[in-house]
Amino acid sequence: MAINLKKPNLNDIFSVPGIQLAVTEAGIKYKDKKDLALILADEGSHAAAVFTKNKFIAAPVIIAKKNLKKSSRIRACIINTGSANAGTGKNGLINAQNTCDRLASQFHIKSDEVLPFSTGVIMKHLPMEKINQGISALALKLNKATWIEVAEAIMTTDTVPKVCSKKIMLDDEEVVITGIAKGSGMIHPNMATMLAFITTNVSIEHNLLTQIVSEVTEETFNLISVDGDTSTNDSFVVISTNKTKKIIVDEQDADFKKLHNIILEVARYLAHAIVRDGEGATKFIKIQVCNGQSKLDCKEIAKKIAHSPLIKTAFFASDPNLGRIMAAIGNAEVSNIDISKINIYLNDYLFAENGALATSYDEAIANKEMKKEEISLKIDLQNGNASQNFYTTDLSYDYVKINAEYRT
Amino acid sequence: MAINLKKPNLNDIFSVPGIQLAVTEAGIKYKDKKDLALILADEGSHAAAVFTKNKFIAAPVIIAKKNLKKSSRIRACIINTGSANAGTGKNGLINAQNTCDRLASQFHIKSDEVLPFSTGVIMKHLPMEKINQGISALALKLNKATWIEVAEAIMTTDTVPKVCSKKIMLDDEEVVITGIAKGSGMIHPNMATMLAFITTNVSIEHNLLTQIVSEVTEETFNLISVDGDTSTNDSFVVISTNKTKKIIVDEQDADFKKLHNIILEVARYLAHAIVRDGEGATKFIKIQVCNGQSKLDCKEIAKKIAHSPLIKTAFFASDPNLGRIMAAIGNAEVSNIDISKINIYLNDYLFAENGALATSYDEAIANKEMKKEEISLKIDLQNGNASQNFYTTDLSYDYVKINAEYRT
Repeated sequence: MAINLKKPNLNDIFSVPGIQLAVTEAGIKYKDKKDLALILADEGSHAAAVFTKNKFIAAPVIIAKKNLKKSSRIRACIINTGSANAGTGKNGLINAQNTCDRLASQFHIKSDEVLPFSTGVIMKHLPMEKINQGISALALKLNKATWIEVAEAIMTTDTVPKVCSKKIMLDDEEVVITGIAKGSGMIHPNMATMLAFITTNVSIEHNLLTQIVSEVTEETFNLISVDGDTSTNDSFVVISTNKTKKIIVDEQDADFKKLHNIILEVARYLAHAIVRDGEGATKFIKIQVCNGQSKLDCKEIAKKIAHSPLIKTAFFASDPNLGRIMAAIGNAEVSNIDISKINIYLNDYLFAENGALATSYDEAIANKEMKKEEISLKIDLQNGNASQNFYTTDLSYDYVKINAEYRT
Repeated sequence: MAINLKKPNLNDIFSVPGIQLAVTEAGIKYKDKKDLALILADEGSHAAAVFTKNKFIAAPVIIAKKNLKKSSRIRACIINTGSANAGTGKNGLINAQNTCDRLASQFHIKSDEVLPFSTGVIMKHLPMEKINQGISALALKLNKATWIEVAEAIMTTDTVPKVCSKKIMLDDEEVVITGIAKGSGMIHPNMATMLAFITTNVSIEHNLLTQIVSEVTEETFNLISVDGDTSTNDSFVVISTNKTKKIIVDEQDADFKKLHNIILEVARYLAHAIVRDGEGATKFIKIQVCNGQSKLDCKEIAKKIAHSPLIKTAFFASDPNLGRIMAAIGNAEVSNIDISKINIYLNDYLFAENGALATSYDEAIANKEMKKEEISLKIDLQNGNASQNFYTTDLSYDYVKINAEYRT
């Protein structure tokens, strides 16, 4: 049911020098499902990351943050599905730590060079025997997995593996950027039940890598929403293996800007792919709020629209019940808007003018526009120069079905 | 499908001295549906009210606020369904004003003594010819309607008319309090597509009536949510006809407290009735957040739980996917909580202890508790002395169906 999102072609996905992959079927929740994945980075690699702001932070995220704080010299990410290892107390922390220890011992690296990630049901303990057996299997299967298989191994309610790969030349050296992501529900700004990993062979100073991760997150993963819920496990990690001769050390360097932009492109593809594969989604909706007094105001209004079940169900039904959009705008916590100036466009069709139904409004046209799979909603506040885009889905029977029956 | 909510028995609903009622079928949206209602109050009556905080405020609400600001001496409330007269610009204001003028002329009162109310689809103009004919019909039908019929006339997606009536003796005089409400979707703190009218024959100073309305709203209509959306038309009005000999003039008077409490009881019944009749609701959920640092913190946490589609779908499925509750708590914008202290109870059954799955947890018991129609969820923060209750519903296939097909 994903909207204009297909499984990528293997020929379009490039290996990253210094990165080795492995996946296995550890049997954590289901039989015969790849559910444990490894991204192994050569010595000399480093990582920058952002994590969930949920206060019920999952055990693996606590360990990952601790290890990354100790040193950015990271060698491995291990990711399991089937259990989020969240709401699992002290035992959860012990299991996440033991996962790192076991992986480190297997691959002859240090335990604090490992970042652990879990996704799946909350309040379920990791089955450590299966995890340990899985880690042994990963060693035997190293370098036998593609990025697409790793993307598949980290899927939960996703229906399509999410992978994006780009190449650019920086200073006559080929730089590869390849990323994967998972997530289709509990997707909301400040991350989601969302895991995203982007790897590159570029050499770059750590503070600049951190800057890219932070800026890119704001422009991509923090501008999407499926259901307004933020998970306990969200993480976005970028690893660079530092294989190019030239090291980017200056943010004024043109290559820094190029690298920033291409990582942004990959992250944006992955963020939009998560929305396109949103649980039960039948429509991909771009909300563009423009001419506001600040980007924050525009984002606040966009979020109110994106999170309104009334609007989302109207989009599902292709019903131009567009007054609900006005009600949502009116609910946004924004002080300086003038309702009587607001124009609203549905795929460039003006339906509300100066805060009221446009005199030219024709329901037949609105009906036709609502039926499209890709919808653009533009709110022109006519009140300033700031603007912000935001991406979301409709709310369908299938969303309820998927989430009502997730654990069964 | 309403949860433990039945049409009231006419014998339990008392007339209010000084109040006359009328309803008619004006044919605004549907044929053969009562869709225009009048509450006519004797001379000497006064009213206090609270209105929606939505910035896209509907035209009738603008007029009602204006008239009430001019004087609290109100003689009539006229309510139509079928069109909310919101997002209708200047023409909408003219129509709301004309409705008042027409009613005033028909009933020989002043136009600014009329409060107009509309509920239904947004961005649809009032059919003034039908409204005018309806007002003539109301005059012929005055005193022929019961409170139950008025409650029915203001229903939109409601399935049960919501009426509550109480009597008390104050200073040897009988005081009647009878109220009605409508609303089953777009229900959210700071009102909803919610209209509520409570009338009483008590004599009371206007500032004290205003105080009661404000305090009662906070404790009732602002503590319920069906889908997190706040409408453009929400209003809660209390009218006293000042018929008793004794006038309440002092908030230290024991009768003031008695009156306050009985109006609170009526309003609470109506607020809970709205949740029980929530669109597609199959469960009535009481969320009790206790031992927090402030009432505001507790309310913030309760609202995050009440608005999470993931939690609401899990309740619909009777699936104890209780980790989602932890994730919602972790998302609340509350600074001083200690996750490791939180205990959570499902109908008194402890399932999370010190922020993790309780060691005694038994899924079979949780499953059984989740199947109940009335669910109580208690979050013990163990972090202070404040507490707050909040009321909501689950999210079902029928919610999507009702809202996807509302206009058709």
